[in-house]
Amino acid sequence: MKSWMLAAVIALMMSPAVAEDAEVPHPDGYRHWFHVKSMVIEEGHPLYAAFGGIHHIYANDEALQGYRSDAFPDGAVLVFDLLDAEHADHAVTEGERKVVGVMHKNAARYPNTGGWGFEGFAGGDPNTRVVGSEAESACFACHAPLADSDYVFSRLRD
Amino acid sequence: MKSWMLAAVIALMMSPAVAEDAEVPHPDGYRHWFHVKSMVIEEGHPLYAAFGGIHHIYANDEALQGYRSDAFPDGAVLVFDLLDAEHADHAVTEGERKVVGVMHKNAARYPNTGGWGFEGFAGGDPNTRVVGSEAESACFACHAPLADSDYVFSRLRD
Repeated sequence: MKSWMLAAVIALMMSPAVAEDAEVPHPDGYRHWFHVKSMVIEEGHPLYAAFGGIHHIYANDEALQGYRSDAFPDGAVLVFDLLDAEHADHAVTEGERKVVGVMHKNAARYPNTGGWGFEGFAGGDPNTRVVGSEAESACFACHAPLADSDYVFSRLRD
Repeated sequence: MKSWMLAAVIALMMSPAVAEDAEVPHPDGYRHWFHVKSMVIEEGHPLYAAFGGIHHIYANDEALQGYRSDAFPDGAVLVFDLLDAEHADHAVTEGERKVVGVMHKNAARYPNTGGWGFEGFAGGDPNTRVVGSEAESACFACHAPLADSDYVFSRLRD
């Protein structure tokens, strides 16, 4: 095989694979993962436009290890499950799902964002991605100062 | 063995056992169970005195079956995990644990309360029971109208 053919074959094999690999997988089954904590973000909060509502954090088993050591292994996945917060009759209840945010650890695959892939699925729909190639500015910019906890905001509680 | 001795031995063996059986077990490991839903109950709500704060409902596998059929099998356990709700800076965050409420299904053991044993553990402490023999008035009175869903308020959501 001539060298230019080899190069073309390698290019054909590698390019789509790299693109697919870099795509953060939808966290199938996350509703059965460990519920870490919850929080309500209300009108007036600086993150209200992006994250207003009630959110729950879920962690897979690898992510649970990560919380305990502040070093999340490859394969660790955290989900930020954001639902509308409906205020009525002196109570806050859960409404429709707004977005499923994901952090997926793979140090080699996501070197520019702390080893984490970031994605958001609008309404929880696995086919509607809202972050894509914008992870560095849309997500990591706020996580970057948290190197001591491997760029993760949430902490485990009992 | 004389018959009175036999009766005494049976009494010794059975009485404490019956008492222990009726005691609702602490739901060890519930934090790893399925997170069903959450809600914040605020000042002004009629249940604020008892249940003010943010609560999460957790279900074991048997209880998950129950939600899907509105008939919870023996062994189904639901946990009502109530934490302080701290309001600050346009957000509601989780504070200290106030109580771990439990519904534990055993139709034969709890015939007067819809087949459910009810208990509360103050602060989540397995040794500090706050319901004890008061389940009928303290808990079941409010659940009694819900026969159609096997006396359970919460519903599964995605």
